[in-house]
Amino acid sequence: MARVVVDVMLKPEILDPQGQAIAGACERLGFSGVREVRQGKRFEVELEGEADDAALSEVRRMAETLLANPVIEDFSLHVE
Amino acid sequence: MARVVVDVMLKPEILDPQGQAIAGACERLGFSGVREVRQGKRFEVELEGEADDAALSEVRRMAETLLANPVIEDFSLHVE
Repeated sequence: MARVVVDVMLKPEILDPQGQAIAGACERLGFSGVREVRQGKRFEVELEGEADDAALSEVRRMAETLLANPVIEDFSLHVE
Repeated sequence: MARVVVDVMLKPEILDPQGQAIAGACERLGFSGVREVRQGKRFEVELEGEADDAALSEVRRMAETLLANPVIEDFSLHVE
């Protein structure tokens, strides 16, 4: 059993109003030194078997088609 | 300038219907070998200065009060 983590973030050129709202809230709440916040998603995928090459390419295909919208989002995956 | 990543996940004992829906969709879409999926949030916080101890404890305080709900969520942070 292995865990693969898929991180999905908006592409850098896509505006992130949610992140901007958080950055604004940080300032109002007195957290200084924050330049920018971007919010994304984190998926923890537990596999039945090992995280071998076949399983990882399956998770990558899953990320491309189900977890991320490749028009506006980038994703990365790593085994944990 | 440094980037601190805050990962926020539901505590293990809290049900995650969103993750369950994704796991169900994986199966229907033909992705085999997925045992469980849990969905959380990922925040990328860009700091004005370095990610020294003071800045990290500030981000930790921010995560506790603004980014995560400590009643139902756990968070972890790391410098990227």
